[in-house]
Amino acid sequence: MKLIVQKFGGTSVRDERGRNLARRHIERALEDGYKVVAVVSAMGRCGDPYATDTLLSLIGGVHHHVTKREQDMLMACGEIISSVVFSNLLNEHGIKATAFTGAQAGFCTNSDHTNAKILEMRCDRLLEALRQYDVVVVAGFQGMAENGDITTLGRGGSDTSAAALGAALNAEWVDIFTDVDGVMTADPRIVESARPLDVVTYTEICNMAYQGAKVIHPRAVEIAMQAKVPLRIRSTYSDAPGTLVTSSVRGRKGSDVKERLVTGITYVADVTQIKVLAKEGHYELQSDVFQAMAHEGISVDFINISPYGVVYTVSGDMTEKAVAALRRIGYEPAVTPRCAKVSVVGAGIAGVPGVTAKIVTALSEQGIQILQSADSHTTIWVLVKQDDMEKAVNALHDAFCLSEADAGEDEAIWSEE
Amino acid sequence: MKLIVQKFGGTSVRDERGRNLARRHIERALEDGYKVVAVVSAMGRCGDPYATDTLLSLIGGVHHHVTKREQDMLMACGEIISSVVFSNLLNEHGIKATAFTGAQAGFCTNSDHTNAKILEMRCDRLLEALRQYDVVVVAGFQGMAENGDITTLGRGGSDTSAAALGAALNAEWVDIFTDVDGVMTADPRIVESARPLDVVTYTEICNMAYQGAKVIHPRAVEIAMQAKVPLRIRSTYSDAPGTLVTSSVRGRKGSDVKERLVTGITYVADVTQIKVLAKEGHYELQSDVFQAMAHEGISVDFINISPYGVVYTVSGDMTEKAVAALRRIGYEPAVTPRCAKVSVVGAGIAGVPGVTAKIVTALSEQGIQILQSADSHTTIWVLVKQDDMEKAVNALHDAFCLSEADAGEDEAIWSEE
Repeated sequence: MKLIVQKFGGTSVRDERGRNLARRHIERALEDGYKVVAVVSAMGRCGDPYATDTLLSLIGGVHHHVTKREQDMLMACGEIISSVVFSNLLNEHGIKATAFTGAQAGFCTNSDHTNAKILEMRCDRLLEALRQYDVVVVAGFQGMAENGDITTLGRGGSDTSAAALGAALNAEWVDIFTDVDGVMTADPRIVESARPLDVVTYTEICNMAYQGAKVIHPRAVEIAMQAKVPLRIRSTYSDAPGTLVTSSVRGRKGSDVKERLVTGITYVADVTQIKVLAKEGHYELQSDVFQAMAHEGISVDFINISPYGVVYTVSGDMTEKAVAALRRIGYEPAVTPRCAKVSVVGAGIAGVPGVTAKIVTALSEQGIQILQSADSHTTIWVLVKQDDMEKAVNALHDAFCLSEADAGEDEAIWSEE
Repeated sequence: MKLIVQKFGGTSVRDERGRNLARRHIERALEDGYKVVAVVSAMGRCGDPYATDTLLSLIGGVHHHVTKREQDMLMACGEIISSVVFSNLLNEHGIKATAFTGAQAGFCTNSDHTNAKILEMRCDRLLEALRQYDVVVVAGFQGMAENGDITTLGRGGSDTSAAALGAALNAEWVDIFTDVDGVMTADPRIVESARPLDVVTYTEICNMAYQGAKVIHPRAVEIAMQAKVPLRIRSTYSDAPGTLVTSSVRGRKGSDVKERLVTGITYVADVTQIKVLAKEGHYELQSDVFQAMAHEGISVDFINISPYGVVYTVSGDMTEKAVAALRRIGYEPAVTPRCAKVSVVGAGIAGVPGVTAKIVTALSEQGIQILQSADSHTTIWVLVKQDDMEKAVNALHDAFCLSEADAGEDEAIWSEE
């Protein structure tokens, strides 16, 4: 059975127009001879009557009286309603479709409500249905625990549902429909010449997602990667092929292109840099500082520990709380608010000489000060002033020629330094 | 475990006020040392976002594109949402409560979607939960088929859910909360002195429901009757005890009162009487007429067959269609539109002499013409002109002294004729 999974988010199934666009994508897949498992989210955004947030508002939002078990029962209705509405639309247009809850589709989870883990996929019934129907519409984001409780899969839930179904059903690929044209080389609101990537690796997209690209949840990528199921990040509003996410950046038609260096430039805006200098002989500093942050529930990032003290960042809105906590334990931090973390992401970065030099040169040519830096085998981060952020993202996007169609495969980049 | 079931309909759980009234009834039961299984309907009436009708409107109402299976999936969400919202309210007020779907509560049904039959109740998990919680709120109207499909129980569904749980859990009784004070001796909009009955038998209430009293679905009564679980029809808006439905009309405190004759007077307004006279030697008439009605999907009632022809009634809005059908097969019927069927209901009627005489006398004293009559062992029906209906219901209500507290137990009635 030739089979693909297509996932449509809340905005895609929110109204008649979106649902009809989604239907067209399904029709094209059917014309190409595929059976389709369509995974849908709840209809709409906050304020729409069947959106997750609105359902939660019925119980006064999330508070201590609501058990997570009941919260899951309530939220799961959003996707079930959506699956029936969408399946009905398909049938109205002559497509043989049926709707399945997460439980019916085979999602067996643990009982960790609101953030359940998939333990097993039991897809016999779904496969049976695919013999009878051309499309099975599955309520995303949900499963069932051993004891019959309805569970939800937590953040990025419907992406995770789609990837898990792709893996379990051995789908040729999984389409993730969004409102963008794919994974972009940079945020198009900041970089005019940003363009969608044809292909990225599972690892690259995870790094980009963690850095704020937010097109797909890393957990979904993880599942697809383990099962070696390709993902496509595509726009609901066009027929563009979008970005293929797979295990190597060899072209989607198998053409033999070189591994590229840099995939994209991402950023996290509005962070605050905090420095705490060590007093002579005060070796408790590091544990004091990070215990204080942990105690206050403040996430720390960009940590740089040295004998002279510690430097790290917190998100802008945590600044006051962090400073107060440090003062309470007797430290007076040096604080630099309004910074931004800019990331150069690329699976090809590891071990390639000259990448850091290229970054430093590009930024200093623009007069941008690097406040701090760090690197992993797939990403190099720099901390800059918030006011320099847009300029920095553009400078790096240019430096790595990301606006060119074959960006990163250009010999010129490889030969530098 | 001392246990009762309490069922709250859509209007009871529709808004905060209704839910708080429902909560007070539960609190009283808890104060009396009972554990409570609360069965809830979907929130509200047509137009409320989570009411059954509104959910159905998402798929353009019930039409040929919607399979009944998907319709059930959609509708079941209404009660699930309601169960979580109500359970949450109870917890906010310090009551230990949890919410169950129909499937979780143990409703195992066949796959006859939108009208599923309960095959088995598997209540282990519910009983387990009642050890831990004081209240389990169960989504009414729904169950699950063997294959994991969500089913609904059809008309009167939540009443049926409550009765089935009462039977399976061996509850002391089942409270059915409505917006009336109980089962009335007659429609209070027509009969000023109508009063709620203290106690009626399962059989009596079934006859009254079929005759238009509509306080509880006969199917729910059937289930309660078989399991010998008493029902109480009560008002959400008061602490009045309502009407006890049980197997004998012996008083609720076991006092030894006599079986009563008549329970109540009900009516069906706006029916049309149709007479078709037999032509000489035309023996096909009866089958001709009723086959024509069946072919047109017209329900017939009050059928009176004789060698001279047939007489029967149809509902007022079917008059034209029925007459047209008869003319097509060559009959010219005599039609009496604007009639009403008035019923005298009472388990005690069977075999008691003088009841018919009492009815005829009461009506003729008021100058009301009886167009037709019929009787079963629990009910006597008369057909009158629509314009005489109110007068007839009042005359019969008076004749059987139904406005008196111990109506029907009055020796005077028994000794007549």
